Amino acid sequence: MALDLSAIGKQLPESTYSYGDREVMLYALGIGATTKELDFVYEKNLKVLPTFAVVPSFPALMSLGTVIEFNPVMLLHGEQRIELKAPIPTSGTLTTKGRVRAIYDKGSGAVVIVDSETKDASGAVLFTNTFGAFIRGEGGFGGERGPSASGQNVPPERSPDHTIEYQTSPDQATLYRLSGDRNPLHIDPDFAKMAGFERPILHGLCTFGYVGRAVLHGVCGGDPARLKDFEVRFSGVVYPGETIVTQIWRESDTRVLVQAKTAERGDAVISNAAATIA
Amino acid sequence: MALDLSAIGKQLPESTYSYGDREVMLYALGIGATTKELDFVYEKNLKVLPTFAVVPSFPALMSLGTVIEFNPVMLLHGEQRIELKAPIPTSGTLTTKGRVRAIYDKGSGAVVIVDSETKDASGAVLFTNTFGAFIRGEGGFGGERGPSASGQNVPPERSPDHTIEYQTSPDQATLYRLSGDRNPLHIDPDFAKMAGFERPILHGLCTFGYVGRAVLHGVCGGDPARLKDFEVRFSGVVYPGETIVTQIWRESDTRVLVQAKTAERGDAVISNAAATIA
Repeated sequence: MALDLSAIGKQLPESTYSYGDREVMLYALGIGATTKELDFVYEKNLKVLPTFAVVPSFPALMSLGTVIEFNPVMLLHGEQRIELKAPIPTSGTLTTKGRVRAIYDKGSGAVVIVDSETKDASGAVLFTNTFGAFIRGEGGFGGERGPSASGQNVPPERSPDHTIEYQTSPDQATLYRLSGDRNPLHIDPDFAKMAGFERPILHGLCTFGYVGRAVLHGVCGGDPARLKDFEVRFSGVVYPGETIVTQIWRESDTRVLVQAKTAERGDAVISNAAATIA
Repeated sequence: MALDLSAIGKQLPESTYSYGDREVMLYALGIGATTKELDFVYEKNLKVLPTFAVVPSFPALMSLGTVIEFNPVMLLHGEQRIELKAPIPTSGTLTTKGRVRAIYDKGSGAVVIVDSETKDASGAVLFTNTFGAFIRGEGGFGGERGPSASGQNVPPERSPDHTIEYQTSPDQATLYRLSGDRNPLHIDPDFAKMAGFERPILHGLCTFGYVGRAVLHGVCGGDPARLKDFEVRFSGVVYPGETIVTQIWRESDTRVLVQAKTAERGDAVISNAAATIA
C-alpha cells in the first residue's frame, strides 16, 4: 500500500493543551530529572525543561491518521527538532497547528515530515516542532528520497568535550507515557513483540528529553532560556533500564554537536544531532 | 498554645475529587508499583490499588486548619485506617465528608482523629478513612490520653509468614507528591531542616501505600477486591531511597498482622498494623 502523497501540504486538526505545574514536574521526572535538579521537579522556583515543547504539540503528530492512512504499529519516530522562541511558562493553555510538509521514500519505509507551531493564549508563538515519522514498510513508491540526515551534524574525530551519563529506570517508559504518548509499544509486551521488538522500548521522545537535559546541564548551565533549538535523528532504540550516554562537542560559542549511545550495548540511539546555545 | 477542643465533633468542608486513569497510574508509580505489576500501571486492564483510597479523601485532612489552629510544620501523620466497601473505579468524581472525632493529649503532642467517608456520584459509599494527625508540641493541655495504639495488633513472637522488600527511589517522594500531598517537608531541604529532619522524608502515606502493596501481593493474590481494611501506626520515618521491609503474620484466615522497618537502619516505620482479607 502506497501512502497518499496528496496529504503533502495539508493542515492537521488544531489541538489545545491545558497544563499546570503538575504536568511540568511529571514530564521532568519522566525524562529522568531528579530531586538534585530541584528547580525542575518542585513548584517553588519551577522552571520548564525546554524539551517539554514536544508535549503540547504531540497531538499534531497523533492526528496524522486524519490525512494519511497507515498502520500505527509500523510508526517509529525518525527525527525531531524543536525551536524555542521564549521560555515555556509553568502553566497555560496552548494551541498547536500542524501541517504535513513532505513525504519521502526511504526504500524500507516512508518518512512523513510534520511541522507544527504552538502559541500561548495571547497568540505569541512559544515554540515550533518538526516531527519526522518513519513508517516501516511504506517505502518503495517511487517518491523523492529527500535530504539525508546522515551527512548533517557529524561530530569531529576528537574526543567529546562533555560526556554525561544518565541511567534510565526499568519503569521509565511507564512514567513517561503519563505525559501523553500512550503508544502500547512502550509498555505492552505483546504489542512490542507484534511490532518486532523483544520487549517494550523507551519512547524516542523520552530519549530526546534525556539527551536535551544532558545538553542543558552540560553547556547551558542548567538555564532553559539558553537552549534555542535542538534537533536529532533517532538511530536506535533504548530499552527502559539502560544508561544513555550523551556526548557533546562544542563547534562554536553558540553551536554544539551531539550524539548518544547506550552504555550497555554501545549502540548509537541519537545521532546527527545539534543544538544552538545562547 | 492549647488546641481548641471545641473542634471535636465539627464537620470539615466537603471536598470533591475528579480523576482518570492517569491519576490511578501515577499513584501506583508513586508507591513503587512497577511494570511487572502491569494491571496497576497500564490502562488496558487497569486495577486501582486499595490504598488509593487516601488520595480522594486527603483534602479532608488538609482542611483541618479550618476548625483548629496549629502550625502545619509541626504536623506528622500518626495513624491511618482505610475501609473499602467496593473496588475503587478507575475514574470518577468522588465526594468526601470529614469530621473531627477526637483530640487526645499525648504529652509531647496532640493527636487529632479525623473520620471521613467518600461517595461516588451515585451516592454509594466507596470507602472510609481515619486519619490520626500528630501535632508536635501541642500536648500537655490536660486532655484525655485516648486509646493506646501500641497495645493493639502486636505480632506474635514467631517469624513472619511473609517478608516483602521494596526499595524506594531517591526521587520517590518527589513522584508521590504529584498525587496531591505537596507538603514541602517531602522535597524541600530547608523546610525539612526547619521541621527538625536532616533531609526531606517520605510521606507517611507513601510508606502506607508500599506496605499496603506488600499486603496485597503477599496475602491477597494481587486482587484489590480482597483487601477489606488496613490500619497502621506510623512509628518512624523513611528517607527516600531506603528499602521498606514488610513483615506479615497470618492471624486467621481473614486477618493479618503487619509491621514494617527499613532495611538500612532497622527502625520500625509502621507498627501495630493489621488488615482484613476476604
